[in-house]
Amino acid sequence: MASTAAAAAKQANGAGALDRLLAATQPEMERVNALILQRADSHVEMVPELARYLIEAGGKRLRPMLTIAAAMLCGKAEGAQINYAAAVEFMHNATLLHDDVVDESEMRRGRPAARMIWGNQASVLVGDFLLGQAFMMMVEAGDIEALGVLSKAATIIAEGEVFQLAKARDLSTSAADYARVIHAKTAMLFEAAAEVGAMAGGADAVSRTALRDYGRELGMAFQLVDDVLDYRGEAGAMGKNTGDDLREGKMTLPVILALEDANPAEREIVIAALTRPDVSETTLGQVVAIMNRYDTLSRTLEQAHRHVRLAREALAPLPPGEMKSLLSDIAEFYVGRAY
Amino acid sequence: MASTAAAAAKQANGAGALDRLLAATQPEMERVNALILQRADSHVEMVPELARYLIEAGGKRLRPMLTIAAAMLCGKAEGAQINYAAAVEFMHNATLLHDDVVDESEMRRGRPAARMIWGNQASVLVGDFLLGQAFMMMVEAGDIEALGVLSKAATIIAEGEVFQLAKARDLSTSAADYARVIHAKTAMLFEAAAEVGAMAGGADAVSRTALRDYGRELGMAFQLVDDVLDYRGEAGAMGKNTGDDLREGKMTLPVILALEDANPAEREIVIAALTRPDVSETTLGQVVAIMNRYDTLSRTLEQAHRHVRLAREALAPLPPGEMKSLLSDIAEFYVGRAY
Repeated sequence: MASTAAAAAKQANGAGALDRLLAATQPEMERVNALILQRADSHVEMVPELARYLIEAGGKRLRPMLTIAAAMLCGKAEGAQINYAAAVEFMHNATLLHDDVVDESEMRRGRPAARMIWGNQASVLVGDFLLGQAFMMMVEAGDIEALGVLSKAATIIAEGEVFQLAKARDLSTSAADYARVIHAKTAMLFEAAAEVGAMAGGADAVSRTALRDYGRELGMAFQLVDDVLDYRGEAGAMGKNTGDDLREGKMTLPVILALEDANPAEREIVIAALTRPDVSETTLGQVVAIMNRYDTLSRTLEQAHRHVRLAREALAPLPPGEMKSLLSDIAEFYVGRAY
Repeated sequence: MASTAAAAAKQANGAGALDRLLAATQPEMERVNALILQRADSHVEMVPELARYLIEAGGKRLRPMLTIAAAMLCGKAEGAQINYAAAVEFMHNATLLHDDVVDESEMRRGRPAARMIWGNQASVLVGDFLLGQAFMMMVEAGDIEALGVLSKAATIIAEGEVFQLAKARDLSTSAADYARVIHAKTAMLFEAAAEVGAMAGGADAVSRTALRDYGRELGMAFQLVDDVLDYRGEAGAMGKNTGDDLREGKMTLPVILALEDANPAEREIVIAALTRPDVSETTLGQVVAIMNRYDTLSRTLEQAHRHVRLAREALAPLPPGEMKSLLSDIAEFYVGRAY
């Protein structure tokens, strides 16, 4: 790529943006984290044990941070953003618990998945508990319109996960199907996180739409990068195993594009890998070689870049300032992960 | 029992009450059923397929009928009860889908459980979808206080299921632990169903509390009877297999009381049956014989009768009328199932 140096510079800028965003949101995020720990509690010991195991493994809490950042950008300091941010994180963690059961994942955030320790049963039920608590926190915030945004998101996320399941190993899955899946299963929660943050921050209709669109495009970019990393990553980088998507027969864009362009012999290799659960390192290597031959990983990243551009453009109607430029820069960082 | 004839008469009265309640709520329940089918729809075919398979197997729809009956009793005809009733039924069906995964159940409502046809994965995710739709329907009704009642119920139900899971095969489980489990996993939704019905019906605080208490006590009685039928029933009667609770190591009241009273040799038989997953018909017969020796099934039914009495007493503050006497009689019917 001619633009490697430019991409590296952008990424450095992005990484710096993450630190600055973490710093800017820290006081509010501390309140969010305290609320999260408090609301993961229960008289049933297994609930906080399992919930905290997952929550404390942590990650960057990008989704609740998006809620807080959106509220800060819109200006109102003492809205319901703490509750919404914690609710968004609970919704996300509930989804992770259920996904790991559905995908039979063994790793999550670099540690054994909760289901490997407490079992599938507890993972399903604690996920339900976290979802219930998420709704309770939203109810306590008292804005039924924001509740509408998040309950719709919960429904669409689940629907998208079923769609993904139905499309597993379905060789006729199109790039449009894939876009629909990742919008539902990933971008929807980013979108809702930013939108309820805007609402808590007292946003007008234009700002609310702008932040919702920003969240959606950021989420699309985020998932596209994830789907590239699944084939490219060192195992540790994402806290799960390279090649998991292939093993699960997930029809992600790198594989859809490969199936479109490959010759019959190559297609056969990809199809064989997709349709059986035991994928050897050799097979994975062959599939990645085919992807590289047709540039499907870099073409997927180009899509991610397109969504980052759309995310940044979505911010245009918002008043200029430190937080706006942070949100603009942070989008770059999440694509930067792939380099 | 000296009171067999009296019990039979009460049951006949109860069965008649069910028919009368079905007739009285029919017009509103038709609207509920139409809304249920509409909201189980999705562009993802697997969602309505699975949801309708479960929903159309049906059962008596006691929970949404309770919502409708409570609203009718409180007098306001055009409140949000249709939405609440459908939401309550969706919450119930979401719980069933997740429970069947957790319990590895093969049968539900007399047919193969959905997970036997569509798999555990789809059952978890369609359950999540139904829960999301339930919240959307409540949001559309627009009363955040009712949303609070139902989201709290969702949380407590999940917490109760985790508690039950943690207590499986735990021989120190007390009758108080058991009461806590069945309140959370079953009575809570009956309680919430009646309470939001009352709210939709424009109830004052006294009527709302009365109907909430009625729902709770009815739910307690319902679960106690279920737990007796699990040992006593012909397989078909409940649409699942006799002895499932024993196989799953569920610490229900009949088994808790048996462990308390049995001699050491009998205790050993019960413990052996509880702690291994393969329970033969012979072993089940031995355990039931021990239960009968110490009257633990009939003592469990006595508890159910006590809750029916409390349910009927809870109705006292409500204005007299046809619906009140129906609700009073219907409680009898649900204990009558055990005879």
